[in-house]
Amino acid sequence: MKKTYTENWTKDVKFSLDYTDHLHSEMSDFQQIDFYKSETMGVFFTLDGLMMVSEKDEFHYHDMITHVSLAVNPNIKKVLIIGGGDGGTAREVSRYKHIETIDMVEIDERVVRLCQTYLPQTASTLDTDERIHLFFQDGLKFVEQAKDKSYDLILVDSTDPIGPGEGLFSKEFYSDCFRVLTDEGILINQHETAFFENYKKEMKRAHSKIKGLFPISKVYQFNQAIYPSGSWLFGFASKKYDPIFDHKPELWEQFNIKTKYYNSNLHKASFCLPSFIQEALEDE
Amino acid sequence: MKKTYTENWTKDVKFSLDYTDHLHSEMSDFQQIDFYKSETMGVFFTLDGLMMVSEKDEFHYHDMITHVSLAVNPNIKKVLIIGGGDGGTAREVSRYKHIETIDMVEIDERVVRLCQTYLPQTASTLDTDERIHLFFQDGLKFVEQAKDKSYDLILVDSTDPIGPGEGLFSKEFYSDCFRVLTDEGILINQHETAFFENYKKEMKRAHSKIKGLFPISKVYQFNQAIYPSGSWLFGFASKKYDPIFDHKPELWEQFNIKTKYYNSNLHKASFCLPSFIQEALEDE
Repeated sequence: MKKTYTENWTKDVKFSLDYTDHLHSEMSDFQQIDFYKSETMGVFFTLDGLMMVSEKDEFHYHDMITHVSLAVNPNIKKVLIIGGGDGGTAREVSRYKHIETIDMVEIDERVVRLCQTYLPQTASTLDTDERIHLFFQDGLKFVEQAKDKSYDLILVDSTDPIGPGEGLFSKEFYSDCFRVLTDEGILINQHETAFFENYKKEMKRAHSKIKGLFPISKVYQFNQAIYPSGSWLFGFASKKYDPIFDHKPELWEQFNIKTKYYNSNLHKASFCLPSFIQEALEDE
Repeated sequence: MKKTYTENWTKDVKFSLDYTDHLHSEMSDFQQIDFYKSETMGVFFTLDGLMMVSEKDEFHYHDMITHVSLAVNPNIKKVLIIGGGDGGTAREVSRYKHIETIDMVEIDERVVRLCQTYLPQTASTLDTDERIHLFFQDGLKFVEQAKDKSYDLILVDSTDPIGPGEGLFSKEFYSDCFRVLTDEGILINQHETAFFENYKKEMKRAHSKIKGLFPISKVYQFNQAIYPSGSWLFGFASKKYDPIFDHKPELWEQFNIKTKYYNSNLHKASFCLPSFIQEALEDE
C-alpha cells in the first residue's frame, strides 16, 4: 500500500509526498513530531503536520537564513538562534571560524534529539562545535531575560505563528530582540509567504511590527519547494546596516565558504521582490 | 464528495487542488484538455494532466515571459508567439502600443477556443487586438517556413518537452528561431526547473542547444506556485543584447505599464540564480 504524507497549503491546495518509511512519530510536550523517508526528498520531518525540513532542499533555507547577514556585517561574533531545532542554521553559522558564541534556544528538546538521530545532515554540528550552547527553553522568555546588547545577530528559525511558534511573531519578542542586539545588530526572521492569503496576513503583521521597531527593515525572498507556493521570505532588520547598501561581497568571499544556494550575486537580488509582494509590505 | 485534481511533480511528489467544478473535458486532436474551477486558484486548465494556467497566478508567468525582453529592446515591433494558447502572453505583448505585429502560432485551436470561453482573463485580448494574427499550426513548421529576419522577438510559450511541445525543444527549432530573428532579435523560451531531476535534465539540454546557437544565452528565474517546485525558468537568447548590460529600465518605465509581478528592480535580479542552478547550467 502506498503511504502518503499530505499537507494542506490552504483549505483546497495540497502538497503530498509518498514516503517509504514513517521513521518516527511522537507527541512531545509541545507538538506532534513525525519523521519520514522519501525517495525524492530524502528524510523529512513535520511538526504538527507541517513540513519543516527535507534533506534534499534544506540548504535553500539554511543558506538564506544565515549568509545574508554575514555578508552585511562580517564582524558578527555573538549569535543567537531562536528555534532551529534541526540544527541546520547552527551548522551554517558554525562554518564561520571567527564567530565566538552560538547560543541556540529551542523550546522542544525532542526535536533536537530526534534530528540528531534521523537528520545528522543538519544536526551533527550540534555535537561537534563547542561554540554552540543549547538551551531548551522558550525563546520568548530567553530574550526577555537576556542582557542588553549581548548579540550581534539573532536568527529566528521558527515555525508558523500558531502553536509553540506564536510568541516569536509578537511585538514583545521583536522588542526584546532589539534590546539584546548590539548597535551593529541584525535580526533575521522567518517571514512566511505573500502568495496565499492565510500566510500573507501573518507576513504583513510581522513586517508591520518589526518596521515599527527597527530603523532598517527589509524582506528577501528565496525558493523552498516544500513550503506553500515555493516562494518564501525572511525579514532583515537592523539598527545600522542596510542589506543592499552595506553588502560587502568582497569580504564575504574571503571566508571562502562554498554554498549551494546563496551567492554574492543572489544577495541583492533576493531583496528585489515581485510587485505584489512589495505592495503587500507597503500596504501595512 | 470532494473532487480533487492531482498532478505528479515527480513519481512521489504531488500537487493537488480541490475543485468545485470540472467545467470541461475533451480529447482534442493533440491532447487531453480539462478546465476546472477552484476557490483559491480560480479557473485553471490542464493539458495531458499537467497544470498550465490558473487565474490566481497567471500574471507571474505572463509578466516574466514578456516584459524582460521589452526592457532590453524597447524597439521590438514584430513579435512571434509559439504556443501560448491561453492568450496571456499575447495579452501582455498587446499592452505595448508601438508593437506592429503579433503572430501567434498555436497547434491546438481547441485550447484557444476553450480559453476564450472559460478563461477570458487571459484570452479576451485575442478577439480585440487587430495586431494579433492567429495561426493554428505546428510552431516547428511555422518557423521552418518563415522568412529570414522577420521577427524582433520570439516567445516560446510551450508545454513540457513531451507530447505536442516536444519539437519546441529541438535544435532544429532553435536554429530556425535564430534564422527568422532580426539582428537585434531576442528569443525567450519556457525553460523548465532545475529542482527535480526529471525536469533538470530537459533544462540542461535546452540550454546546451541554445548556447550553441546564440552569442548570448542566459536563464532567469521566477516563482510559479502551480509548477513543480515553485521555481521556474525562462531562457533569454539574443544575437546582440545582453539582458543585464543592455537593460534599459528608464525607457521601459516610459511605457507606463502597471505590472503585478515584473518590475525594473526585479529584472536583473531574476538572472541572479541560486548556485545549484548556475552550476547545472555551466555543467553542460
